[in-house]
Amino acid sequence: MPRIVMKFGGTSMAGIERIRHVAERVRREAADGAEVRVVVSARAGETDRLVQLCREATALHDSTEYDVVVASGEQVTAGLLAMTLQNMGVNARSFMGWQLVRASGVHGNARVDAVESGMLDDALKSGIVAVIPGFQGMSDDGRLATLGRGGSDTSAVAIAAGVKADRCDIYTDVDGVYTTDPRIVPKARKLDAITFEEMLELAGVGAKVLQTRSVGLAMRENLPLRVLSAFEDKPGTRVVAQLSGADMERNQIAGIAADKNEARVTLTGIADAPGMVAQVISPLADAGILVDMIVHAATPNSGSSDLTFTVPRASLSQAIAVIEQRKGTIGFAELIHDDAVAKVSIVGVGIRSNPGLASKMFETLAERKINLLAVSSSEIKVSALIAEAELDLAVRVLHTAFGLDADA
Amino acid sequence: MPRIVMKFGGTSMAGIERIRHVAERVRREAADGAEVRVVVSARAGETDRLVQLCREATALHDSTEYDVVVASGEQVTAGLLAMTLQNMGVNARSFMGWQLVRASGVHGNARVDAVESGMLDDALKSGIVAVIPGFQGMSDDGRLATLGRGGSDTSAVAIAAGVKADRCDIYTDVDGVYTTDPRIVPKARKLDAITFEEMLELAGVGAKVLQTRSVGLAMRENLPLRVLSAFEDKPGTRVVAQLSGADMERNQIAGIAADKNEARVTLTGIADAPGMVAQVISPLADAGILVDMIVHAATPNSGSSDLTFTVPRASLSQAIAVIEQRKGTIGFAELIHDDAVAKVSIVGVGIRSNPGLASKMFETLAERKINLLAVSSSEIKVSALIAEAELDLAVRVLHTAFGLDADA
Repeated sequence: MPRIVMKFGGTSMAGIERIRHVAERVRREAADGAEVRVVVSARAGETDRLVQLCREATALHDSTEYDVVVASGEQVTAGLLAMTLQNMGVNARSFMGWQLVRASGVHGNARVDAVESGMLDDALKSGIVAVIPGFQGMSDDGRLATLGRGGSDTSAVAIAAGVKADRCDIYTDVDGVYTTDPRIVPKARKLDAITFEEMLELAGVGAKVLQTRSVGLAMRENLPLRVLSAFEDKPGTRVVAQLSGADMERNQIAGIAADKNEARVTLTGIADAPGMVAQVISPLADAGILVDMIVHAATPNSGSSDLTFTVPRASLSQAIAVIEQRKGTIGFAELIHDDAVAKVSIVGVGIRSNPGLASKMFETLAERKINLLAVSSSEIKVSALIAEAELDLAVRVLHTAFGLDADA
Repeated sequence: MPRIVMKFGGTSMAGIERIRHVAERVRREAADGAEVRVVVSARAGETDRLVQLCREATALHDSTEYDVVVASGEQVTAGLLAMTLQNMGVNARSFMGWQLVRASGVHGNARVDAVESGMLDDALKSGIVAVIPGFQGMSDDGRLATLGRGGSDTSAVAIAAGVKADRCDIYTDVDGVYTTDPRIVPKARKLDAITFEEMLELAGVGAKVLQTRSVGLAMRENLPLRVLSAFEDKPGTRVVAQLSGADMERNQIAGIAADKNEARVTLTGIADAPGMVAQVISPLADAGILVDMIVHAATPNSGSSDLTFTVPRASLSQAIAVIEQRKGTIGFAELIHDDAVAKVSIVGVGIRSNPGLASKMFETLAERKINLLAVSSSEIKVSALIAEAELDLAVRVLHTAFGLDADA
């Protein structure tokens, strides 16, 4: 008998009709013999409304009180789904996040420490389908704690791990994970399967189907996920530790990621001495600025070099200020910045074993005369920084070149 | 240093501006040296909205899940008020109902068993103003439980009793308790003070300023209340065990109550035998119908008699059905019913010691040729059933006759 956690997002909780639809899916799964637990989001828009109330109340609000306010949305949908299930003849009841999930860390962005699975196991033994509000738990000091926006995914995965579920099904408003953003490439294709690592790299560069933290947690717990449509009966995308069987036949590249949230900073004429890169990057990290691509290439025998790095666009002016303040210590000729840049990446476990994939990427972009401003790579990802105006073209030609187009 | 509980109703929680106004009142009270705890309602309309969601979900909903849904409204306002207070420099934090209030009985209409005052005492010692969602607690089985509509008044009184407060201040959208409904008598006057018993009798016949249960609880705990306007700085009405000092000078009648929610049933020609009244009334009670005024007068030596009683209008057809079913056993000539009746009552602790007040009531109504369909009286109340069309006139003439008119 498969043991599963089903998680439903905000759009599938928006209104009683949709909640009935969700209940029907849960009922079917239970009738098919699965041991089912359900985790729900607040109805779409509700968390935004509650966050707005907090902002109106006071610009600098206490995050524990923020948690008290915003945690209410999931409580409502959990109660509504439980009563709807009962009405369909399913033995169901709601549990509260504070009863089940121990959390710690920063309020408003807490992490899950443990799940009190005993209560859920007891419920299961009595044949009860537990319905649990996502996004929340209780901290050590006995206060409500929320897990950050999108935290219901993380709740679902943590609860699935806690009850040793066979898998966690994430029902959402898209029907799976795509090879790239279908708004850029209409021929984007839904993937049958993707690895955790690939999913993390795709999420990190803009494919926001799942909260990144939930994928990281699923990877650590080796808990298979499925991303499915809440509205259509389609198989969705499996997110797994390793591809196997038919999935192995999949393209070596899982997808193409596009990210416009980039700004480039270049420092020219810095001394080509040990520790120079750290002297620039450390103060930025101290200021809480996420530095992404770092390219440092010394011109041989010149004694000086250029350093290029990217930061999120919203942090650009802060980053410039931090660097300018340290101009004396760092010692550079010029600070050049550009926020009309974007990052295109190929992501796939195949990259690890096939260095030709990176070359193919650079050749494909060169054929279209797309200039590379910076390049970085990890085990399963190669990224190129290019002019923002060329991003859509770059994504399309790479999508075709790597054989990802639907019906290709 | 006075120890008080301040309770704010839904209209004073409707919107951030009003919450700021509430916070300012709390701040002032704390600055004046009081030991303050605050109990809040959901914003006006929110509980109705949540109840409606439950109704849409399913007509017959599980009352524990109903509680999960409707309890969320007060959680939101508690968090918002706590952060607003902090922003004003007041050391405040919210507590949840499930942390503090033990409840039992029927879900959706639970009663308070105990208040965990230890947590609140600890908070107080740290100089923290506790903000608590009204209307809710936790039942023995670890589920959220709500106290029935208007239950935040009861929460406030229970918490005040639990922490041995000197008084509980109920801030609402009226500025106190009036001698009668100002919509009927524009000259209605706000009372400085009223006893618990009088308040209960006035509430029972339609003056819905406080939830009846909260007044009963305050009476049992001998906890003085104040009813005050949340919007204006006025002294309001004190609700106390006994009038004393200047309050003794108050009129012997506290107020005139009007109740249109009455229907009359008369059975003619029933046997004048022991137990006949019980044979009629018991089946009604068994059916959950609240029988109010009962008048049974035998015509001497006739061997038969009439029985008149009143029931809530909404229960009239059910009451008729119950009686008709038992026509054979009861044995009556005719069942006459009338729902165009109303009850007018004089309420006051003076009635206990002054039988002349009842006579004065009957004389006053007789002068205006208002016919009495039934009469009942308790220690501190005399009620007359009259034609509904004559109710407003009756209230006005009694209000004047008992010296209650403002500037009289």
